[in-house]
Amino acid sequence: MNQAPFSIAIHGGAGTILRTNMTPEKEHAYNSALDQALKAGIAVLTEAGTALDAVTAAVTSLENCPLFNAGRGSVFTHDGSHEMDASIMTGHNLESGSVAGVTGVRNPVLLARAVMEKSEHALLASRGAEAFARAMQLPFEDSAYFHNDLRHSQWQEALRDDKIVLDHTEKKFGTVGAVARDIHGNLAASTSTGGMTNKKWGRIGDSPIIGAGTYANNATCAISCTGHGEYFIQSVVAYDISCLMEYKGLTLADACHEVVRKKLVQRGGEGGLIAVDHAGNVCLPFNSEGMYRAWYEAGQQHVAIYR
Amino acid sequence: MNQAPFSIAIHGGAGTILRTNMTPEKEHAYNSALDQALKAGIAVLTEAGTALDAVTAAVTSLENCPLFNAGRGSVFTHDGSHEMDASIMTGHNLESGSVAGVTGVRNPVLLARAVMEKSEHALLASRGAEAFARAMQLPFEDSAYFHNDLRHSQWQEALRDDKIVLDHTEKKFGTVGAVARDIHGNLAASTSTGGMTNKKWGRIGDSPIIGAGTYANNATCAISCTGHGEYFIQSVVAYDISCLMEYKGLTLADACHEVVRKKLVQRGGEGGLIAVDHAGNVCLPFNSEGMYRAWYEAGQQHVAIYR
Repeated sequence: MNQAPFSIAIHGGAGTILRTNMTPEKEHAYNSALDQALKAGIAVLTEAGTALDAVTAAVTSLENCPLFNAGRGSVFTHDGSHEMDASIMTGHNLESGSVAGVTGVRNPVLLARAVMEKSEHALLASRGAEAFARAMQLPFEDSAYFHNDLRHSQWQEALRDDKIVLDHTEKKFGTVGAVARDIHGNLAASTSTGGMTNKKWGRIGDSPIIGAGTYANNATCAISCTGHGEYFIQSVVAYDISCLMEYKGLTLADACHEVVRKKLVQRGGEGGLIAVDHAGNVCLPFNSEGMYRAWYEAGQQHVAIYR
Repeated sequence: MNQAPFSIAIHGGAGTILRTNMTPEKEHAYNSALDQALKAGIAVLTEAGTALDAVTAAVTSLENCPLFNAGRGSVFTHDGSHEMDASIMTGHNLESGSVAGVTGVRNPVLLARAVMEKSEHALLASRGAEAFARAMQLPFEDSAYFHNDLRHSQWQEALRDDKIVLDHTEKKFGTVGAVARDIHGNLAASTSTGGMTNKKWGRIGDSPIIGAGTYANNATCAISCTGHGEYFIQSVVAYDISCLMEYKGLTLADACHEVVRKKLVQRGGEGGLIAVDHAGNVCLPFNSEGMYRAWYEAGQQHVAIYR
């Protein structure tokens, strides 16, 4: 068996709770949830599992946790429903699957993976994507599963103010994601989100867009983004980092700095990302006050929220 | 007034009618439609108009022509409706607008432009995007407007065979697009499509995806793609060409060759694209048998279908 190291990083969104609003209880709850999701990924990688299975396990864990804006914890749209987006990509053959604007699906990451593995398509949306999920016999949940008093009051507040907000009260860009390198040298990335509170008009952000919110290529890196999605789409953030490595010879750290701390800042694009390169190096840059994150690199495990 | 040259290129899809099936009458009809769309763009640029207005005019003309799979000529989905995608991007500030899976909107390119100019979002989908179109008072058409006997028989045939096809009978990837450089040095790109005949599950291709089917950046180039969308999404084709120019120093022609004739061919991704660079050079590479195309460069006008 190849004894090369494995690495994994996860995020639960950038922006985060302002430090002044954080309590020890909340911080403990977030850290525990991040730790649990990271361990779900590590468990796969320890058993010589694939990066693809590891990011699937980690994102599923984050989707099942009501603390994060994805899956169960998704925010409310303008009409009181939940519209979720997700994507997944595997770096050894550049295949990907994405879904956008799906309602009722318990784990959008599993639907994205089914799109990749069991359809001829790369991106399915809305009612059509839900029909595909039913054909794949993926679990659905009713609105009670997705109900959350905090999200509901955020929505009511946004409705009153007629504001569309990226996870309103906590000023957090609600997204989850994972990137990994397995012992076989394969990379994978996945991102999942419940979008913006009070969103209208079927808005889709960068999370389901390959090249913007998610990208993986064994030759360079695997990336999952979180932030103000429109800027991440127009800056093609995830693929930009890969291109800076492949075409300009930058290290992962230098490419991340160039894109997140310079180019995005110049455009006013707030957010961050998690990245792992072909050698297993991890980088977690953000230009917001914080980013819920955890990672395992060179045998060491870390969890953090603020800078 | 700046007397720098302007350039524009348009396409009506790659793959095209096999040469053996082409008649002089059909060829004349396609050439006339391409000529008309090109002239709509040239008219804007001659009057010192913007690249953004020029690509809008050209794509609107192509959408209004029933010969091409976009707007009026869109193919039928599995359930007998028309689901259209479109995008537009302007290279001077990297702003963009896209719509996916919209039904009944007469000109999806105008809706994409409204998303760019009058919403805070980059991508709107499905019923939400249609609601936004109504709020913007954009024209809608009933199903009779989109009906076309050829498209209808293609759909019936696909239904019988249970096949999802990229513009079935004519083996053509049905998409339209335009790229332009105006006399002010600004670039713009736009792409619009009616998708795949008999498509199910809300499939979205590369046309509305910034970085995949459409990209524009004054520092490098403007790109509009046509082809097997899944490969174009996973290869981030449009932004790849921009990155090869910006980070590796390739010319537009060399970058196009690398991506369309080498990388896409290696992956089995059939199709092509149109491109214009910051200096007004035009490139129209494809790896399929043909691509409906027309362009104006250095004062000369051209129309072509095959190699």
